[in-house]
Amino acid sequence: MALYLTESEISQIIDIQLAIDSVEESFKLIATGQGVTKSRERLPVGISSMNYMSAGINIENITGLKVYVPNPKGTKFYVHIMNSLNGELISIIEGNMLGQYRTGAASGVASKFLANPNSRKALLIGTGFQSFTQILSLDNIFDLEEVYVYSRSEENRNNFIKNYQPKIHAKLTAIESVSNKIENIDIINVITNSKTPVLDGNTITAGIHINAAGSNHALRRELDTKTILKANKIFVDDLDQAKNECGDLIYPESLGLIQWRNIASFSDIFRFPNKYVRNKDDITIFESQGLALWDLVLAYKLYQLAIIKGLGKEINV
Amino acid sequence: MALYLTESEISQIIDIQLAIDSVEESFKLIATGQGVTKSRERLPVGISSMNYMSAGINIENITGLKVYVPNPKGTKFYVHIMNSLNGELISIIEGNMLGQYRTGAASGVASKFLANPNSRKALLIGTGFQSFTQILSLDNIFDLEEVYVYSRSEENRNNFIKNYQPKIHAKLTAIESVSNKIENIDIINVITNSKTPVLDGNTITAGIHINAAGSNHALRRELDTKTILKANKIFVDDLDQAKNECGDLIYPESLGLIQWRNIASFSDIFRFPNKYVRNKDDITIFESQGLALWDLVLAYKLYQLAIIKGLGKEINV
Repeated sequence: MALYLTESEISQIIDIQLAIDSVEESFKLIATGQGVTKSRERLPVGISSMNYMSAGINIENITGLKVYVPNPKGTKFYVHIMNSLNGELISIIEGNMLGQYRTGAASGVASKFLANPNSRKALLIGTGFQSFTQILSLDNIFDLEEVYVYSRSEENRNNFIKNYQPKIHAKLTAIESVSNKIENIDIINVITNSKTPVLDGNTITAGIHINAAGSNHALRRELDTKTILKANKIFVDDLDQAKNECGDLIYPESLGLIQWRNIASFSDIFRFPNKYVRNKDDITIFESQGLALWDLVLAYKLYQLAIIKGLGKEINV
Repeated sequence: MALYLTESEISQIIDIQLAIDSVEESFKLIATGQGVTKSRERLPVGISSMNYMSAGINIENITGLKVYVPNPKGTKFYVHIMNSLNGELISIIEGNMLGQYRTGAASGVASKFLANPNSRKALLIGTGFQSFTQILSLDNIFDLEEVYVYSRSEENRNNFIKNYQPKIHAKLTAIESVSNKIENIDIINVITNSKTPVLDGNTITAGIHINAAGSNHALRRELDTKTILKANKIFVDDLDQAKNECGDLIYPESLGLIQWRNIASFSDIFRFPNKYVRNKDDITIFESQGLALWDLVLAYKLYQLAIIKGLGKEINV
């Protein structure tokens, strides 16, 4: 017996706190050797590709895959959960909303441990389908006063505010440009599909934490080299995957401007709690390509909730 | 809508000819650049692992994954088929029988192109759950007179013959040892889970074709180095995967006794039809770790047959 859960069913049980807990738990599982996660593989098929990534939770005897075919008209994600002892399929979960929540939660979790704890102002760059949860998680973790929202398109930034202001405590304010220095920003979330940097290092002031979550391709960059070089400390979700996919770091590393040995895995925050202590004026960056373990931990929580609530459909009774 | 097919449903529509056609088609797809296949990944989880491998058929806009957790009490395999244009899940197929048939068919297809076309005698080493289809495919392709069956256990070899003689045209004959030279053998199929070689190169006579399909781990070997060195030509199903998993070749290569550049991909048979022409006394070897593309091509044929016959259950109507 395996349970199939649709997007519509997931929407009834998912919330940002569950996603935040799942991402934080994932990093703790990695830090304690109980969680494993493997980088994305991309199989080219015709004009597209099938992408898949895997993870496991040793103590839960659970393993799983996230699989999807990138589709400009709307990608469908699936998360498969299996029993790692007997190999039985446990659940298949449609994973679009799950993916949005875990990606947003990751920026929240990173900010919780890296940003100014009294963060009041944030800047969101990018208003696509992943953007709302980026702000939802910050809004949940911090007592935010205002979030500046930037998109190249005026229509998109205004629509974003119209759609999501009712769900966010902080005031959302559209801005027309990110090329000028914006004072008193504590956290910047960059979530675009840009191929070239959208953030100008000259605008970055002391004390800022940046979450760059939009790119998972070596040839795409969201942060310019000046921003990277200004950072006192850079964290990635997974170093192996970053070396393959994180254009923001691959580019300056290829020029010899930074070294991989100076980039930290975010799970080190839990493995060596005293190794990195934030100074007030530190500039920090969290580069995120996304971990299959986040998907698996959240998917398994959703599966358990679905059982309790009687949601889902048995697919091989 | 995606179709779930159980082992029991697959047993109603699978046959060895379909599997043979699928494997041959797979190699032709690779040879013409229309088929892609990616090596097995192994994610360690607790005391086990989740293994997965992927493939795609460009012209059909189909892609898929085979995923399983090796389990000594009986591994469950799943083959997932997806549309490579829009990413929709098409079917999930329980893949144990599918795997047995495609693995057996592969030894058949290799023998069809590499062995003596008038092969009359074969030797089967190993009588586990993969062995029957090894002989079924040879029996289907050649006009076999006799198949010698060897297992270390007398009970196992006798049971094998009792169970499967009714389904095989050739006479099955149990033998107590493979350490003596057996005259007039045309084809040897080795399908064991042995860690050390089960075949002694001294027993190998001119004109023999060997299929070694049991091992997919670098530290496991079925053929000894003498057998490998006696071969005039060695083919593998996939060179990348062989370099990771084919202990029979990795071991002598590590000693400098053979070179990877002299090992051929079996798809070259179709890419360069005149490159390898069999001489009567040639000794040939087909080393097989198994391709995800075989699973996908066969799974897709089974899916199409299931639709026609009204088998399977819709899992997300």
